[in-house]
Amino acid sequence: MEGEATRVMVAVNESTIKGYPHASISSKGAFEWTLNKIVRSNTSGFKLLFLHVQVPDEDGFEDMDSIFASPDDFKGMKNRDKIRGLHLLEYFVNRCHEIGVPCEAWIKKGDPKEVICHEVKRVQPDLLVVGCRGLGPFQRVFVGTVSEFCVKHAECPVVTIKRSAAETPQDPIDD
Amino acid sequence: MEGEATRVMVAVNESTIKGYPHASISSKGAFEWTLNKIVRSNTSGFKLLFLHVQVPDEDGFEDMDSIFASPDDFKGMKNRDKIRGLHLLEYFVNRCHEIGVPCEAWIKKGDPKEVICHEVKRVQPDLLVVGCRGLGPFQRVFVGTVSEFCVKHAECPVVTIKRSAAETPQDPIDD
Repeated sequence: MEGEATRVMVAVNESTIKGYPHASISSKGAFEWTLNKIVRSNTSGFKLLFLHVQVPDEDGFEDMDSIFASPDDFKGMKNRDKIRGLHLLEYFVNRCHEIGVPCEAWIKKGDPKEVICHEVKRVQPDLLVVGCRGLGPFQRVFVGTVSEFCVKHAECPVVTIKRSAAETPQDPIDD
Repeated sequence: MEGEATRVMVAVNESTIKGYPHASISSKGAFEWTLNKIVRSNTSGFKLLFLHVQVPDEDGFEDMDSIFASPDDFKGMKNRDKIRGLHLLEYFVNRCHEIGVPCEAWIKKGDPKEVICHEVKRVQPDLLVVGCRGLGPFQRVFVGTVSEFCVKHAECPVVTIKRSAAETPQDPIDD
């Protein structure tokens, strides 16, 4: 007899190379690690909580070709973002469903590191799993890493899963 | 069907208050967290690897009352240290045996943070669990924390388990 399931929050984002609906290499790595090394065959002992934080598109580059003629056009844009995020989450939820691991998934907007820590405080998972690109100190200065911030500030145990060398793209800043 | 067991290394040390053979509050916390939240009922899916690093007694305070008259006296001292470390490990191995989780335990001498990272490199566990006292930034400057070093330098995923407020002794530097 087991008590309540272990709730593992997995922070996921989209690929910088392929965009939505593709998950980043490091998100997939964090997810697969959680399944293979932690959940294993004990699917009923765990519940996975997928959080995807969308960064507001500040420079609006992606909307360069859009034409805005009415308030509804902006609404459409917001909906499109939402739909992209949902497609990303669908990948993880489908995988869990196939394997039989209970899960939940949701989207928030904002600065990923801040939002992740805020959601940890709200949801209180037993463990937070965050993928990371495994950048060197020089690259980190320019990129800033979400995982380092979470390790320091999240109010629950955090584990960071680095990409393997084999999975790292030519430009390690890509993911 | 499951593949090879997930190998979880747990770094353990003795209590600063009670000394040997008592485990520190944070070691026990890290161990219990691993059992309750990760291993759960899947005892055959995991193997726990307990590493205890003994810090060489540089100032020799503990041997103030000893009399050294022959080389054998020094040998006796070294044996005594070894036996203390073994008693500490016995606690963890016994608990695993009761629950039915496969385990291994061993002792190394040296600087805990360096030795833990070295042993991770050698043994290549899937996860390293380290307890920590959860000190504030001011206290950390003076104490130095093994867990922070391992998070940065260990070549495997690392999770740090903080003591709960309820378990924290009056002086938070104690453990």
